[in-house]
Amino acid sequence: MTYCVGIKLDRGLVLAADTRTNAGIDNIASFKKLHVWEKTGERVITLLSSGNLAVTQAVVSLLSEHADNSSDERTTVMTAKTMFQVARLVGSAIREVKAIDGEALAANADNFYVSFILGGQIKGEEPRLFQVYAAGNFIEVADDTPFLQIGEHKYGKPILDRVTRKNMRLGEAAKMILLSFDSTLRSNLSVGMPIDMLLYNTDSFNTDRQIRIQQDNPYFQKLSHGWSEKLREGFADLEEFDV
Amino acid sequence: MTYCVGIKLDRGLVLAADTRTNAGIDNIASFKKLHVWEKTGERVITLLSSGNLAVTQAVVSLLSEHADNSSDERTTVMTAKTMFQVARLVGSAIREVKAIDGEALAANADNFYVSFILGGQIKGEEPRLFQVYAAGNFIEVADDTPFLQIGEHKYGKPILDRVTRKNMRLGEAAKMILLSFDSTLRSNLSVGMPIDMLLYNTDSFNTDRQIRIQQDNPYFQKLSHGWSEKLREGFADLEEFDV
Repeated sequence: MTYCVGIKLDRGLVLAADTRTNAGIDNIASFKKLHVWEKTGERVITLLSSGNLAVTQAVVSLLSEHADNSSDERTTVMTAKTMFQVARLVGSAIREVKAIDGEALAANADNFYVSFILGGQIKGEEPRLFQVYAAGNFIEVADDTPFLQIGEHKYGKPILDRVTRKNMRLGEAAKMILLSFDSTLRSNLSVGMPIDMLLYNTDSFNTDRQIRIQQDNPYFQKLSHGWSEKLREGFADLEEFDV
Repeated sequence: MTYCVGIKLDRGLVLAADTRTNAGIDNIASFKKLHVWEKTGERVITLLSSGNLAVTQAVVSLLSEHADNSSDERTTVMTAKTMFQVARLVGSAIREVKAIDGEALAANADNFYVSFILGGQIKGEEPRLFQVYAAGNFIEVADDTPFLQIGEHKYGKPILDRVTRKNMRLGEAAKMILLSFDSTLRSNLSVGMPIDMLLYNTDSFNTDRQIRIQQDNPYFQKLSHGWSEKLREGFADLEEFDV
């Protein structure tokens, strides 16, 4: 599995993805699942992927090939005028891969299971955040629930449900997302370090605040231990059940 | 879905189950999923059930019918000498129900999905805790991980993973389990109040500490709010991420 989170705040976006892929528990590898297309000063587009790695890589490669082939007339992630158009491009790429590989996968009893979180900003718009499904259709987040999760999302959802506020600072949201990852990593082997993360400040149009957090990252270690301690202390402070 | 937890501690057992059943989100009802057979001073046997309600009810009814029919020569939950024997009786009952209903369920594309947590004590033994699968086979908990969960278990697992200790008081464990339920209830509609809970003290051979916790239970309300506050305070105390 995988775990990816995207959150849209008043001040920008925070996106994070783990890097573990596995084909059975004895075949584990590390792959980047956070992909960025960027034109400094004009657009930053981020795609987080979950599901069949061959399919998600094919989708990303298609989008990149189209973008690189600038002589082409077609709209690409580098030329689209809005994030809505980019979401449609991602959907089309998924459908293209399905048209090529879908039948063979089905014949092999493999699932065409993929899911993407798409976040970014194109000059002239606010930052936007989408979830794109295997069918190529998509939703955009609204204010009521400003975060999206794909992959192994249940362990890390309670903290997002409790703590998320639209007016958080990006660093606060990043802390929350790392705690959500910490809970998931502790309870589920199919999600693994390192974690790729991007903090995107509205109207910055750059990816300066992108980082790969390794297992031994001092901040992550301290956060993880600190949180365990806070939970234990908080737990001890609450009145015991009696019947 | 359902959420049930059982934990085996040095001082006894704590078992809890929600009561929501649903056949689609527009067909929700409340059913007891914590079943007790008891002979005061000699045995307390508790079965928590998850899965197809018709199947789990049939399993419980079969076990009860056999137990009531005392003229019968066969071993029942009321006469078995060990909890291991009881676990085998539960397994046999599952297989009996499968033999009767399994084919018709399969023909109807319904799953024969059930799962049970069995906990209790019979005089002459320590308290024991088992998970019984749809195939009728089972596992018993060991010291390394003294809790079992069935149903919608992911949301509530992180707190159990972090807080569980074999030497907890039962009231402490009950508090932890209720927090585990609280996280699940907040994030998943298919798990619902009230919660049935039994705190079983080793060698008590009674079910005096059995309770149904309703939505408006003052302790549960206070615990839920208190925990949210502790989490928010703890979160705020931790250093913010910066990159």
